[in-house]
Amino acid sequence: MALPKGPTMQFTSEQRLDDAVLEREFTLGEIPGILWTPGSASAPAPLILISPPPLGLRKTYPRLVARARHSAAHGFATATIELPGSGDRPRWPAAEQALADLRRAMEAGEPVSDEIIDALILPLVDKAVPEWRAALDALLSLPEIGGPVGYSGGVISIGTRLAVVEPRISAAVLFAGSFVPRAMFEEARQVTIPLHVLLQWDDEGNDRQAALDLFDAFGSKEKTLHANMGGHTGVPQFAGDAAAQFFTRHLK
Amino acid sequence: MALPKGPTMQFTSEQRLDDAVLEREFTLGEIPGILWTPGSASAPAPLILISPPPLGLRKTYPRLVARARHSAAHGFATATIELPGSGDRPRWPAAEQALADLRRAMEAGEPVSDEIIDALILPLVDKAVPEWRAALDALLSLPEIGGPVGYSGGVISIGTRLAVVEPRISAAVLFAGSFVPRAMFEEARQVTIPLHVLLQWDDEGNDRQAALDLFDAFGSKEKTLHANMGGHTGVPQFAGDAAAQFFTRHLK
Repeated sequence: MALPKGPTMQFTSEQRLDDAVLEREFTLGEIPGILWTPGSASAPAPLILISPPPLGLRKTYPRLVARARHSAAHGFATATIELPGSGDRPRWPAAEQALADLRRAMEAGEPVSDEIIDALILPLVDKAVPEWRAALDALLSLPEIGGPVGYSGGVISIGTRLAVVEPRISAAVLFAGSFVPRAMFEEARQVTIPLHVLLQWDDEGNDRQAALDLFDAFGSKEKTLHANMGGHTGVPQFAGDAAAQFFTRHLK
Repeated sequence: MALPKGPTMQFTSEQRLDDAVLEREFTLGEIPGILWTPGSASAPAPLILISPPPLGLRKTYPRLVARARHSAAHGFATATIELPGSGDRPRWPAAEQALADLRRAMEAGEPVSDEIIDALILPLVDKAVPEWRAALDALLSLPEIGGPVGYSGGVISIGTRLAVVEPRISAAVLFAGSFVPRAMFEEARQVTIPLHVLLQWDDEGNDRQAALDLFDAFGSKEKTLHANMGGHTGVPQFAGDAAAQFFTRHLK
Protein backbone atom coordinates (compact mmCIF):
# COMPACT_ATOMS: atom_id res chain seq x y z
CA MET A 1 0.00 0.00 0.00
CA ALA A 2 1.65 3.21 -1.12
CA LEU A 3 0.49 6.01 1.09
CA PRO A 4 -1.22 8.79 -0.87
CA LYS A 5 0.33 12.20 -0.44
CA GLY A 6 -1.40 14.04 2.38
CA PRO A 7 -4.02 11.49 3.50
CA THR A 8 -6.99 13.01 5.30
CA MET A 9 -7.24 12.83 9.08
CA GLN A 10 -10.72 12.16 10.37
CA PHE A 11 -11.79 11.87 13.98
CA THR A 12 -14.03 8.84 14.51
CA SER A 13 -14.71 8.91 18.24
CA GLU A 14 -14.07 11.08 21.25
CA GLN A 15 -14.15 10.45 24.98
CA ARG A 16 -12.95 12.30 28.02
CA LEU A 17 -10.90 9.84 30.11
CA ASP A 18 -11.22 12.23 33.03
CA ASP A 19 -10.88 15.96 33.41
CA ALA A 20 -7.23 15.73 32.49
CA VAL A 21 -7.20 13.87 29.16
CA LEU A 22 -9.27 13.93 25.97
CA GLU A 23 -8.93 10.77 23.87
CA ARG A 24 -9.86 10.86 20.19
CA GLU A 25 -9.60 8.00 17.73
CA PHE A 26 -8.91 8.96 14.15
CA THR A 27 -8.12 7.55 10.75
CA LEU A 28 -5.35 8.86 8.56
CA GLY A 29 -6.40 7.52 5.17
CA GLU A 30 -6.69 3.84 6.02
CA ILE A 31 -4.52 3.96 9.11
CA PRO A 32 -6.17 4.00 12.55
CA GLY A 33 -4.70 6.19 15.26
CA ILE A 34 -5.36 7.75 18.65
CA LEU A 35 -4.71 11.29 19.90
CA TRP A 36 -4.62 12.20 23.58
CA THR A 37 -4.57 15.90 24.59
CA PRO A 38 -4.26 17.39 28.06
CA GLY A 39 -7.62 18.77 29.15
CA SER A 40 -6.16 21.82 30.77
CA ALA A 41 -3.94 23.09 27.94
CA SER A 42 -4.42 26.79 27.28
CA ALA A 43 -1.61 27.06 24.73
CA PRO A 44 -0.86 24.53 21.96
CA ALA A 45 0.72 21.48 23.62
CA PRO A 46 4.05 19.99 22.57
CA LEU A 47 3.53 16.59 20.97
CA ILE A 48 5.03 13.18 21.67
CA LEU A 49 4.55 10.53 19.00
CA ILE A 50 4.35 7.18 20.76
CA SER A 51 5.04 4.32 18.43
CA PRO A 52 3.56 1.03 19.62
CA PRO A 53 5.27 -2.33 19.44
CA PRO A 54 4.07 -4.25 16.34
CA LEU A 55 1.29 -6.01 18.24
CA GLY A 56 -1.68 -3.83 17.36
CA LEU A 57 -3.10 -0.79 19.10
CA ARG A 58 -5.92 -2.76 20.74
CA LYS A 59 -3.56 -5.24 22.34
CA THR A 60 -1.18 -2.56 23.60
CA TYR A 61 -3.88 0.00 24.49
CA PRO A 62 -3.48 -0.34 28.29
CA ARG A 63 0.24 0.43 28.08
CA LEU A 64 -0.26 3.23 25.54
CA VAL A 65 -2.99 4.98 27.50
CA ALA A 66 -0.90 4.78 30.68
CA ARG A 67 1.93 6.53 28.85
CA ALA A 68 -0.52 9.09 27.38
CA ARG A 69 -1.94 9.93 30.83
CA HIS A 70 1.55 10.22 32.27
CA SER A 71 2.58 12.53 29.43
CA ALA A 72 -0.59 14.63 29.75
CA ALA A 73 0.21 15.18 33.41
CA HIS A 74 3.44 16.79 32.19
CA GLY A 75 1.54 18.94 29.66
CA PHE A 76 2.21 16.89 26.53
CA ALA A 77 -0.19 15.76 23.83
CA THR A 78 0.50 12.24 22.57
CA ALA A 79 -0.52 10.41 19.41
CA THR A 80 -0.04 6.97 17.96
CA ILE A 81 -0.88 5.19 14.69
CA GLU A 82 -1.15 1.50 13.88
CA LEU A 83 1.98 0.01 12.32
CA PRO A 84 1.78 -1.61 8.87
CA GLY A 85 0.50 -5.20 9.08
CA SER A 86 -0.59 -4.81 12.73
CA GLY A 87 -3.98 -4.73 14.42
CA ASP A 88 -6.90 -4.15 12.06
CA ARG A 89 -4.71 -3.13 9.13
CA PRO A 90 -4.48 -5.43 6.08
CA ARG A 91 -2.35 -8.52 6.61
CA TRP A 92 1.17 -8.36 5.25
CA PRO A 93 2.25 -11.86 4.19
CA ALA A 94 5.95 -11.05 3.70
CA ALA A 95 6.20 -9.62 7.22
CA GLU A 96 4.35 -12.60 8.66
CA GLN A 97 6.75 -14.93 6.87
CA ALA A 98 9.76 -13.07 8.30
CA LEU A 99 8.28 -13.26 11.80
CA ALA A 100 7.64 -16.99 11.38
CA ASP A 101 11.25 -17.48 10.27
CA LEU A 102 12.45 -15.55 13.32
CA ARG A 103 10.33 -17.61 15.71
CA ARG A 104 11.47 -20.87 14.14
CA ALA A 105 15.14 -19.89 14.50
CA MET A 106 14.67 -18.80 18.12
CA GLU A 107 12.69 -21.90 19.09
CA ALA A 108 15.36 -24.09 17.50
CA GLY A 109 17.97 -22.21 19.53
CA GLU A 110 19.72 -21.14 16.32
CA PRO A 111 21.38 -17.74 15.91
CA VAL A 112 19.06 -15.28 14.18
CA SER A 113 20.64 -14.55 10.82
CA ASP A 114 21.14 -11.10 9.32
CA GLU A 115 18.83 -12.16 6.47
CA ILE A 116 15.96 -12.84 8.86
CA ILE A 117 16.48 -9.56 10.73
CA ASP A 118 16.71 -7.56 7.51
CA ALA A 119 13.55 -9.18 6.11
CA LEU A 120 11.68 -8.49 9.35
CA ILE A 121 12.75 -4.91 10.04
CA LEU A 122 13.83 -3.07 6.89
CA PRO A 123 10.49 -3.27 4.99
CA LEU A 124 8.70 -2.24 8.19
CA VAL A 125 10.93 0.83 8.55
CA ASP A 126 10.53 1.72 4.86
CA LYS A 127 6.74 1.53 5.12
CA ALA A 128 6.19 2.99 8.60
CA VAL A 129 8.42 6.08 8.50
CA PRO A 130 6.51 7.91 5.70
CA GLU A 131 3.26 7.12 7.52
CA TRP A 132 4.54 8.69 10.75
CA ARG A 133 5.65 11.75 8.80
CA ALA A 134 2.19 12.04 7.23
CA ALA A 135 0.66 11.70 10.71
CA LEU A 136 2.92 14.50 11.88
CA ASP A 137 1.71 16.74 9.02
CA ALA A 138 -1.90 16.14 10.03
CA LEU A 139 -1.34 16.45 13.80
CA LEU A 140 0.65 19.67 13.57
CA SER A 141 -2.17 21.26 11.55
CA LEU A 142 -4.47 20.97 14.60
CA PRO A 143 -4.67 24.21 16.61
CA GLU A 144 -4.35 22.38 19.96
CA ILE A 145 -0.99 20.85 18.96
CA GLY A 146 2.20 22.86 18.81
CA GLY A 147 5.83 22.01 18.57
CA PRO A 148 8.37 20.85 19.42
CA VAL A 149 7.85 17.17 18.74
CA GLY A 150 9.25 14.17 20.56
CA TYR A 151 9.21 10.55 19.50
CA SER A 152 8.90 7.63 21.90
CA GLY A 153 9.01 4.33 20.21
CA GLY A 154 8.87 0.62 20.36
CA VAL A 155 10.78 -0.42 17.23
CA ILE A 156 14.18 1.22 17.57
CA SER A 157 14.97 1.12 13.84
CA ILE A 158 11.83 3.15 13.04
CA GLY A 159 12.86 5.75 15.63
CA THR A 160 16.39 5.83 14.26
CA ARG A 161 15.27 6.44 10.68
CA LEU A 162 12.73 9.06 11.80
CA ALA A 163 15.38 10.88 13.82
CA VAL A 164 17.54 11.10 10.70
CA VAL A 165 14.95 12.09 8.10
CA GLU A 166 12.36 14.12 10.06
CA PRO A 167 13.71 17.51 11.16
CA ARG A 168 10.57 18.34 13.14
CA ILE A 169 11.45 15.69 15.75
CA SER A 170 13.59 17.35 18.43
CA ALA A 171 14.25 14.52 20.89
CA ALA A 172 13.56 10.80 21.11
CA VAL A 173 13.10 8.08 23.72
CA LEU A 174 14.02 4.75 22.15
CA PHE A 175 13.49 1.22 23.46
CA ALA A 176 16.43 -1.06 22.86
CA GLY A 177 14.26 -4.13 22.60
CA SER A 178 14.14 -5.28 19.01
CA PHE A 179 16.43 -6.74 16.40
CA VAL A 180 18.55 -4.21 14.54
CA PRO A 181 19.64 -4.66 10.91
CA ARG A 182 23.32 -3.93 10.30
CA ALA A 183 22.36 -1.19 7.87
CA MET A 184 20.75 0.75 10.73
CA PHE A 185 24.12 1.26 12.44
CA GLU A 186 25.13 3.54 9.59
CA GLU A 187 21.90 5.52 9.96
CA ALA A 188 22.42 5.69 13.73
CA ARG A 189 25.70 7.55 13.17
CA GLN A 190 23.73 10.29 11.38
CA VAL A 191 21.40 10.93 14.33
CA THR A 192 22.16 14.21 16.11
CA ILE A 193 19.08 14.91 18.28
CA PRO A 194 19.17 14.22 22.05
CA LEU A 195 18.37 10.57 22.77
CA HIS A 196 17.20 8.72 25.86
CA VAL A 197 17.56 4.97 25.33
CA LEU A 198 15.82 2.44 27.58
CA LEU A 199 17.29 -1.05 27.81
CA GLN A 200 15.73 -3.92 29.72
CA TRP A 201 18.83 -5.81 30.79
CA ASP A 202 17.20 -9.26 30.82
CA ASP A 203 14.99 -8.76 27.77
CA GLU A 204 14.36 -12.28 26.52
CA GLY A 205 13.77 -11.13 22.92
CA ASN A 206 16.70 -8.78 22.71
CA ASP A 207 20.40 -9.03 21.97
CA ARG A 208 21.97 -6.92 24.74
CA GLN A 209 25.31 -6.51 22.99
CA ALA A 210 23.62 -5.31 19.79
CA ALA A 211 21.68 -2.77 21.85
CA LEU A 212 24.88 -1.47 23.47
CA ASP A 213 26.60 -1.33 20.07
CA LEU A 214 23.70 0.64 18.63
CA PHE A 215 23.78 3.07 21.56
CA ASP A 216 27.48 3.53 20.94
CA ALA A 217 26.86 4.19 17.24
CA PHE A 218 24.36 7.03 17.65
CA GLY A 219 25.95 10.30 16.59
CA SER A 220 24.10 12.43 19.15
CA LYS A 221 26.20 14.52 21.47
CA GLU A 222 23.61 14.08 24.21
CA LYS A 223 22.57 10.47 24.58
CA THR A 224 21.75 8.61 27.76
CA LEU A 225 21.27 4.89 28.29
CA HIS A 226 19.01 3.78 31.13
CA ALA A 227 19.31 0.05 31.73
CA ASN A 228 16.98 -1.61 34.19
CA MET A 229 16.43 -5.12 35.37
CA GLY A 230 13.61 -7.26 34.10
CA GLY A 231 12.13 -8.49 30.85
CA HIS A 232 10.67 -6.79 27.82
CA THR A 233 7.53 -5.38 29.42
CA GLY A 234 8.98 -4.85 32.89
CA VAL A 235 10.09 -1.22 32.48
CA PRO A 236 9.81 0.17 36.04
CA GLN A 237 7.64 3.18 36.86
CA PHE A 238 10.67 5.32 37.77
CA ALA A 239 12.10 4.75 34.28
CA GLY A 240 8.90 6.22 32.83
CA ASP A 241 9.32 9.22 35.10
CA ALA A 242 12.89 9.69 33.89
CA ALA A 243 11.75 9.58 30.26
CA ALA A 244 9.12 12.25 31.00
CA GLN A 245 11.81 14.43 32.57
CA PHE A 246 13.95 13.99 29.46
CA PHE A 247 11.09 15.27 27.28
CA THR A 248 10.40 18.11 29.70
CA ARG A 249 14.06 19.20 29.39
CA HIS A 250 14.00 19.12 25.61
CA LEU A 251 10.48 19.99 24.51
CA LYS A 252 9.61 22.84 26.85
CA MET B 1 47.73 1.88 60.17
CA ALA B 2 45.26 -0.34 61.98
CA LEU B 3 42.25 1.73 62.91
CA PRO B 4 41.60 1.69 66.65
CA LYS B 5 38.17 0.41 67.64
CA GLY B 6 35.73 3.28 67.88
CA PRO B 7 37.95 6.28 67.08
CA THR B 8 36.66 9.58 68.47
CA MET B 9 34.90 12.07 66.23
CA GLN B 10 35.80 15.69 66.92
CA PHE B 11 34.45 18.73 65.14
CA THR B 12 37.25 21.12 64.23
CA SER B 13 35.44 23.89 62.38
CA GLU B 14 31.95 24.98 61.51
CA GLN B 15 30.50 27.33 58.92
CA ARG B 16 27.07 28.05 57.54
CA LEU B 17 27.32 27.93 53.72
CA ASP B 18 23.97 29.68 53.55
CA ASP B 19 20.70 29.27 55.39
CA ALA B 20 20.28 25.85 53.86
CA VAL B 21 23.50 24.00 54.75
CA LEU B 22 25.75 23.73 57.81
CA GLU B 23 29.27 22.51 57.02
CA ARG B 24 31.42 21.03 59.78
CA GLU B 25 34.91 19.61 59.43
CA PHE B 26 35.83 16.82 61.78
CA THR B 27 38.50 14.30 62.57
CA LEU B 28 37.79 10.67 63.19
CA GLY B 29 40.93 9.59 64.99
CA GLU B 30 43.53 10.70 62.45
CA ILE B 31 41.15 10.83 59.51
CA PRO B 32 39.80 14.20 58.32
CA GLY B 33 36.20 14.44 57.22
CA ILE B 34 33.38 16.86 56.47
CA LEU B 35 29.71 16.73 57.46
CA TRP B 36 27.00 18.77 55.75
CA THR B 37 23.55 18.97 57.30
CA PRO B 38 20.42 20.65 55.94
CA GLY B 39 19.74 23.81 57.89
CA SER B 40 16.03 23.33 57.96
CA ALA B 41 15.85 19.75 59.25
CA SER B 42 13.36 19.36 62.10
CA ALA B 43 13.68 15.57 62.31
CA PRO B 44 16.94 13.58 62.07
CA ALA B 45 18.02 13.63 58.41
CA PRO B 46 18.77 10.51 56.39
CA LEU B 47 22.48 10.29 55.61
CA ILE B 48 24.38 9.87 52.37
CA LEU B 49 28.04 8.92 52.64
CA ILE B 50 29.84 10.47 49.68
CA SER B 51 33.15 8.82 49.01
CA PRO B 52 35.57 11.04 47.11
CA PRO B 53 37.83 9.91 44.30
CA PRO B 54 41.34 9.19 45.66
CA LEU B 55 42.58 12.72 44.96
CA GLY B 56 42.17 14.29 48.38
CA LEU B 57 39.27 16.20 49.90
CA ARG B 58 40.82 19.61 49.23
CA LYS B 59 41.26 18.94 45.54
CA THR B 60 37.76 17.55 45.10
CA TYR B 61 36.04 19.96 47.52
CA PRO B 62 34.19 21.97 44.82
CA ARG B 63 32.58 18.82 43.43
CA LEU B 64 31.85 17.40 46.89
CA VAL B 65 30.22 20.57 48.20
CA ALA B 66 28.08 20.84 45.06
CA ARG B 67 26.81 17.31 45.71
CA ALA B 68 26.29 18.11 49.40
CA ARG B 69 24.21 21.23 48.59
CA HIS B 70 22.18 19.30 46.04
CA SER B 71 21.53 16.54 48.59
CA ALA B 72 20.65 19.04 51.33
CA ALA B 73 18.03 20.55 49.03
CA HIS B 74 16.44 17.09 49.01
CA GLY B 75 16.62 16.86 52.83
CA PHE B 76 19.70 14.66 53.14
CA ALA B 77 22.74 15.05 55.36
CA THR B 78 25.99 14.09 53.67
CA ALA B 79 29.41 13.20 55.01
CA THR B 80 32.79 12.29 53.59
CA ILE B 81 36.16 11.18 54.93
CA GLU B 82 39.60 11.27 53.39
CA LEU B 83 40.69 8.00 51.76
CA PRO B 84 43.87 6.25 52.99
CA GLY B 85 46.98 7.76 51.40
CA SER B 86 45.07 10.78 50.01
CA GLY B 87 45.11 14.48 50.85
CA ASP B 88 46.78 15.29 54.16
CA ARG B 89 46.86 11.69 55.36
CA PRO B 90 50.22 9.90 55.71
CA ARG B 91 51.78 8.86 52.43
CA TRP B 92 51.30 5.22 51.46
CA PRO B 93 54.34 4.10 49.45
CA ALA B 94 52.86 0.80 48.25
CA ALA B 95 49.79 2.57 46.84
CA GLU B 96 51.97 5.21 45.19
CA GLN B 97 54.05 2.46 43.59
CA ALA B 98 50.92 0.74 42.26
CA LEU B 99 49.68 4.04 40.81
CA ALA B 100 53.07 4.68 39.19
CA ASP B 101 52.97 1.19 37.64
CA LEU B 102 49.47 1.88 36.31
CA ARG B 103 50.49 5.21 34.78
CA ARG B 104 53.58 3.68 33.18
CA ALA B 105 51.49 0.92 31.58
CA MET B 106 48.86 3.37 30.31
CA GLU B 107 51.41 5.81 28.95
CA ALA B 108 53.19 2.96 27.17
CA GLY B 109 49.85 1.92 25.67
CA GLU B 110 50.16 -1.48 27.32
CA PRO B 111 47.19 -3.40 28.71
CA VAL B 112 46.83 -2.85 32.45
CA SER B 113 47.56 -6.22 34.07
CA ASP B 114 45.45 -7.86 36.77
CA GLU B 115 48.47 -7.63 39.06
CA ILE B 116 48.61 -3.84 38.76
CA ILE B 117 44.87 -3.48 39.31
CA ASP B 118 44.90 -5.79 42.32
CA ALA B 119 47.86 -3.96 43.87
CA LEU B 120 46.16 -0.61 43.33
CA ILE B 121 42.62 -1.39 44.47
CA LEU B 122 42.50 -4.34 46.89
CA PRO B 123 44.65 -2.81 49.68
CA LEU B 124 42.67 0.43 49.34
CA VAL B 125 39.37 -1.44 49.76
CA ASP B 126 40.73 -3.42 52.73
CA LYS B 127 41.85 -0.24 54.45
CA ALA B 128 39.02 2.14 53.55
CA VAL B 129 35.97 0.00 54.25
CA PRO B 130 36.54 -0.36 58.04
CA GLU B 131 37.17 3.39 58.19
CA TRP B 132 33.84 4.15 56.51
CA ARG B 133 32.10 1.79 58.91
CA ALA B 134 33.73 3.57 61.86
CA ALA B 135 32.62 6.91 60.39
CA LEU B 136 29.10 5.53 60.16
CA ASP B 137 29.18 4.54 63.85
CA ALA B 138 30.20 8.08 64.80
CA LEU B 139 27.81 9.87 62.43
CA LEU B 140 24.77 7.83 63.43
CA SER B 141 25.40 8.69 67.08
CA LEU B 142 24.71 12.38 66.30
CA PRO B 143 21.13 13.42 67.12
CA GLU B 144 20.73 15.34 63.86
CA ILE B 145 21.49 12.24 61.75
CA GLY B 146 19.00 9.42 61.34
CA GLY B 147 18.73 6.48 59.05
CA PRO B 148 18.45 5.10 56.50
CA VAL B 149 21.90 5.48 55.00
CA GLY B 150 22.91 5.75 51.37
CA TYR B 151 26.38 5.52 49.87
CA SER B 152 27.52 7.49 46.84
CA GLY B 153 31.01 6.73 45.83
CA GLY B 154 33.91 7.29 43.59
CA VAL B 155 35.84 4.02 43.85
CA ILE B 156 33.35 1.37 42.82
CA SER B 157 35.17 -1.48 44.59
CA ILE B 158 34.89 0.32 47.95
CA GLY B 159 31.15 0.79 47.39
CA THR B 160 30.77 -2.84 46.39
CA ARG B 161 32.50 -4.16 49.52
CA LEU B 162 30.57 -1.74 51.76
CA ALA B 163 27.27 -2.81 50.20
CA VAL B 164 28.10 -6.43 51.07
CA VAL B 165 29.44 -6.03 54.61
CA GLU B 166 27.57 -3.01 56.02
CA PRO B 167 23.88 -3.76 56.66
CA ARG B 168 23.11 -0.15 57.61
CA ILE B 169 23.58 0.98 53.99
CA SER B 170 20.21 0.71 52.24
CA ALA B 171 20.97 1.96 48.73
CA ALA B 172 24.03 3.01 46.75
CA VAL B 173 24.96 5.21 43.80
CA LEU B 174 28.17 3.87 42.27
CA PHE B 175 30.44 5.44 39.65
CA ALA B 176 31.71 2.97 37.09
CA GLY B 177 34.92 4.83 36.57
CA SER B 178 37.78 2.92 38.11
CA PHE B 179 39.64 -0.31 37.60
CA VAL B 180 37.98 -3.37 39.09
CA PRO B 181 39.93 -6.38 40.42
CA ARG B 182 38.58 -9.73 39.27
CA ALA B 183 37.95 -10.70 42.89
CA MET B 184 35.38 -7.91 43.19
CA PHE B 185 33.07 -9.59 40.67
CA GLU B 186 32.45 -12.36 43.21
CA GLU B 187 31.64 -9.75 45.88
CA ALA B 188 29.37 -7.94 43.43
CA ARG B 189 27.21 -11.06 43.14
CA GLN B 190 26.56 -10.84 46.90
CA VAL B 191 25.18 -7.29 46.75
CA THR B 192 21.40 -7.17 47.23
CA ILE B 193 20.60 -3.49 47.96
CA PRO B 194 19.15 -1.23 45.24
CA LEU B 195 21.91 0.21 43.05
CA HIS B 196 22.11 3.18 40.71
CA VAL B 197 25.27 2.95 38.60
CA LEU B 198 26.61 5.94 36.65
CA LEU B 199 28.83 5.26 33.65
CA GLN B 200 30.56 7.94 31.60
CA TRP B 201 30.56 6.30 28.18
CA ASP B 202 33.78 7.95 26.97
CA ASP B 203 35.64 7.84 30.28
CA GLU B 204 39.30 7.93 29.28
CA GLY B 205 40.46 6.14 32.43
CA ASN B 206 37.84 3.44 32.42
CA ASP B 207 37.33 0.09 30.74
CA ARG B 208 33.72 0.30 29.51
CA GLN B 209 33.32 -3.44 29.03
CA ALA B 210 34.57 -4.14 32.56
CA ALA B 211 32.03 -1.61 33.87
CA LEU B 212 29.19 -3.32 31.99
CA ASP B 213 30.36 -6.74 33.21
CA LEU B 214 30.42 -5.50 36.80
CA PHE B 215 26.92 -4.03 36.43
CA ASP B 216 25.78 -7.40 35.12
CA ALA B 217 27.40 -9.20 38.08
CA PHE B 218 25.66 -7.25 40.87
CA GLY B 219 23.14 -9.50 42.59
CA SER B 220 20.65 -6.70 43.31
CA LYS B 221 17.12 -7.19 42.05
CA GLU B 222 16.81 -3.43 41.50
CA LYS B 223 19.80 -2.03 39.69
CA THR B 224 19.84 0.72 37.08
CA LEU B 225 22.66 1.79 34.81
CA HIS B 226 22.72 5.40 33.63
CA ALA B 227 25.27 5.88 30.87
CA ASN B 228 25.99 9.40 29.64
CA MET B 229 28.31 10.89 27.10
CA GLY B 230 31.51 12.56 28.08
CA GLY B 231 34.65 11.92 30.08
CA HIS B 232 35.35 11.10 33.70
CA THR B 233 34.33 14.42 35.23
CA GLY B 234 31.63 15.27 32.70
CA VAL B 235 28.63 13.81 34.54
CA PRO B 236 25.72 16.00 33.37
CA GLN B 237 23.54 17.92 35.82
CA PHE B 238 20.47 15.85 34.95
CA ALA B 239 22.35 12.68 35.95
CA GLY B 240 22.89 14.20 39.39
CA ASP B 241 19.17 14.92 39.61
CA ALA B 242 18.38 11.32 38.73
CA ALA B 243 20.72 10.05 41.46
CA ALA B 244 18.99 12.32 44.00
CA GLN B 245 15.62 10.90 42.92
CA PHE B 246 16.98 7.38 43.41
CA PHE B 247 17.96 8.22 46.99
CA THR B 248 14.62 9.93 47.60
CA ARG B 249 12.85 6.74 46.49
CA HIS B 250 14.92 4.52 48.75
CA LEU B 251 15.84 6.57 51.81
CA LYS B 252 12.57 8.38 52.55
